[in-house]
Amino acid sequence: MNEKRAIKVALLGAGSVGSQVARLLLEQADEYERRVGTRLELIGISVRNPDANRDADLPRELFTTDAQTLIVSADIVIELMGGITPARELVTLALESGADVVTANKALLAHHGAELFELAERVGAQLYYEAAVGGAIPIIRPLRENLGGDKVERILGIVNGTTNYILDRMHTRGDSFDESLRIATELGYAEADPTADIEGYDAQQKAAILASIAFHTKVPVDQVYREGITQVSIEQIEDAKRAGYVVKLLAICERLTDEQNGGEKVSARVYPALVPETHPLASVHGGNNAIFVEAKAAGSLMFYGAGAGGVETASAVLGDLVAAARRHLLGGPGSGESMDADLPIVPVEEILTSYHISLAAEDEAGILAGIAQTFAAQQVSVATLEQAAPTETDDEEGTGDSRATLVIGTHLATEGALSGLVKALADSPAVHQINGVLRVEGVHA
Amino acid sequence: MNEKRAIKVALLGAGSVGSQVARLLLEQADEYERRVGTRLELIGISVRNPDANRDADLPRELFTTDAQTLIVSADIVIELMGGITPARELVTLALESGADVVTANKALLAHHGAELFELAERVGAQLYYEAAVGGAIPIIRPLRENLGGDKVERILGIVNGTTNYILDRMHTRGDSFDESLRIATELGYAEADPTADIEGYDAQQKAAILASIAFHTKVPVDQVYREGITQVSIEQIEDAKRAGYVVKLLAICERLTDEQNGGEKVSARVYPALVPETHPLASVHGGNNAIFVEAKAAGSLMFYGAGAGGVETASAVLGDLVAAARRHLLGGPGSGESMDADLPIVPVEEILTSYHISLAAEDEAGILAGIAQTFAAQQVSVATLEQAAPTETDDEEGTGDSRATLVIGTHLATEGALSGLVKALADSPAVHQINGVLRVEGVHA
Repeated sequence: MNEKRAIKVALLGAGSVGSQVARLLLEQADEYERRVGTRLELIGISVRNPDANRDADLPRELFTTDAQTLIVSADIVIELMGGITPARELVTLALESGADVVTANKALLAHHGAELFELAERVGAQLYYEAAVGGAIPIIRPLRENLGGDKVERILGIVNGTTNYILDRMHTRGDSFDESLRIATELGYAEADPTADIEGYDAQQKAAILASIAFHTKVPVDQVYREGITQVSIEQIEDAKRAGYVVKLLAICERLTDEQNGGEKVSARVYPALVPETHPLASVHGGNNAIFVEAKAAGSLMFYGAGAGGVETASAVLGDLVAAARRHLLGGPGSGESMDADLPIVPVEEILTSYHISLAAEDEAGILAGIAQTFAAQQVSVATLEQAAPTETDDEEGTGDSRATLVIGTHLATEGALSGLVKALADSPAVHQINGVLRVEGVHA
Repeated sequence: MNEKRAIKVALLGAGSVGSQVARLLLEQADEYERRVGTRLELIGISVRNPDANRDADLPRELFTTDAQTLIVSADIVIELMGGITPARELVTLALESGADVVTANKALLAHHGAELFELAERVGAQLYYEAAVGGAIPIIRPLRENLGGDKVERILGIVNGTTNYILDRMHTRGDSFDESLRIATELGYAEADPTADIEGYDAQQKAAILASIAFHTKVPVDQVYREGITQVSIEQIEDAKRAGYVVKLLAICERLTDEQNGGEKVSARVYPALVPETHPLASVHGGNNAIFVEAKAAGSLMFYGAGAGGVETASAVLGDLVAAARRHLLGGPGSGESMDADLPIVPVEEILTSYHISLAAEDEAGILAGIAQTFAAQQVSVATLEQAAPTETDDEEGTGDSRATLVIGTHLATEGALSGLVKALADSPAVHQINGVLRVEGVHA
């Protein structure tokens, strides 16, 4: 098609995503040549063990254990190893040696994104990472470019497929958390060690990345508040269902007004929350992801699709590769993230939210008054109250006392006031135990 | 922030979108300067009548009636006039005078896109048009770039808010088409002359644009099959509801296999179709738009949001403006659409689909057998059959005969065979009348 020299592509890692990227890059080479205007040549794949089994049938001669040599020969380096070490050193080497980089490494970006963006900017290289959040779902480019003339106000994201699968199963089938996790593991939705998913670390990294782009502000991952879903009980899910809500693990990024100086500040946090069943996020089932974005001019947008999977994530990586290749031909300066807004990050205690608190109380006259007093004393007001029928419990003490289960919804209050309230309720003689606490999202603007 | 000269921006048109673009461009000038790296200066707004009322309060001195002079002074021209004349000449002038162009003009792109992309490519200018389809919803850039390494197989789009509002109202409230249109007009969802929307011309233009990008193939608007929603009756909507479907006006773009030579071909078409109520498109309510995309590697994706509205569409225009400005600073060749795939476009008669046919038949023994014979003779097989209770009709002839309403779902067959079947049924003495025919989409892959 023309006589431009081929663009040399190095691949680091050949796991479930990497092997699909390599396969498609080889299979669709002619198509990419037409789209880019020159050939994309896969010059090598660096792996720990060249003889390991792969998800795709790839030419043995492409494999190498020498990542460094591969990197310095490449025009574009695709990093799909995951983890911080040695990915951080290798991506740094790639950028320093003048290559553009495409990565899907959310941990690397959440922990060292700012440093890598600065390096890319300094050396005039491109750094692409569409696949780091939401798998196949276009979200990084839409946030950076489509909304580049708008102001993002809020993001509510279902960005972890494992936890969505578990919560969806609990909601639709009534299975317990443990049973749902077991099935998720069997079906391949959860890894052998599911900690990163179910404790919310994966979502926390993605929240840090989304907030940084959306607000043009460095949001370090350790400033993203995090709760996982291991404490979510089937009773909470059923209470939520009765009240017209679905429980979802949300990555929340918000632009807030600083009441003190009229300026802006931002929050990024991850926790299981109640979402109204009429909200578009409520109908995101199974292992799917969806990111709901509210922008000042655009209003509400939602991006939906497969949040994980080898070939699905490969689609996002290859989109970045084609874009990087076109841009590589064009030359010119790098496109580091603009982090110039530099807004303060709000600690979770200052966030205004509302709670549904499920508690077991002795079923005696006057108990409700006592609980209401606790609310008043903590300056949190009651919005809704639902009392389940009292049941004869066979608890460990074998008292067989009659107890009532109350689900109390609060009005908006700060996280600080709400956690004070929960503590006061736990200490109240009227309350036998707090069954669980969930925040409500997607209703109050 | 730096000493680069400002980028001169000319705006053509100050209607509902244009006036919001101008307002935000002025209000957010500092923010854009930080994001782009140099100032975006609005040098003028060309309109027919500078004294007309606007949706935003804009400086009088910006207005001019001399579009030509304005254009030749600009680095970037934003065309928001709509329509073909004089937009076509003015966009051509802008590109020829070396300016990059941002437009939201779907009619212009659907009818003259190929010519304008070629011109942009030839002169090395950029042509952006995210706002032409789906208002605020990112869809053009995701299709071009995020899916630039993937293969789009199918698009099912709700791309017209007016018709979605009407059909949603018929479905959820049970109002007739006429009543729903009346209310849509009152609420501003429909224009005084709603023809372009309700007859599907607007969706047809958008389908032509989406198919062209998705398949890298010129898809002329007159090769997009089109039916509007004026023939959709409340009875059809209710039959659909009972059978678990929702009626939506869909813009459908499909890549198909050419059975004869094993190659590929494409189809683009617009018609009201039955969508299963479990499909993500089924829960797109009111005036919203959503575009459901199936790609080979990425799987199913959906993009959802406000498909129209002045400030919402302005968000997409301003995203393009910021991207164009960054790219303008960088210089280099243009980015015309790659139309190199050049696939054949399939006439609608060859499309495989399935129908729900509602018909009134005389309620006599043996009628069903007669109808079944008609199906067999046309080589279309029956998949489902629902018979409504016979009613005493007071028809025009006043016969008061007892008639049965049948809703018959077919298996997949070509459009040609299906339209032959409908004709044969209409001619059958067993059939009193065909009440309506709707295609089914979103079930068969």
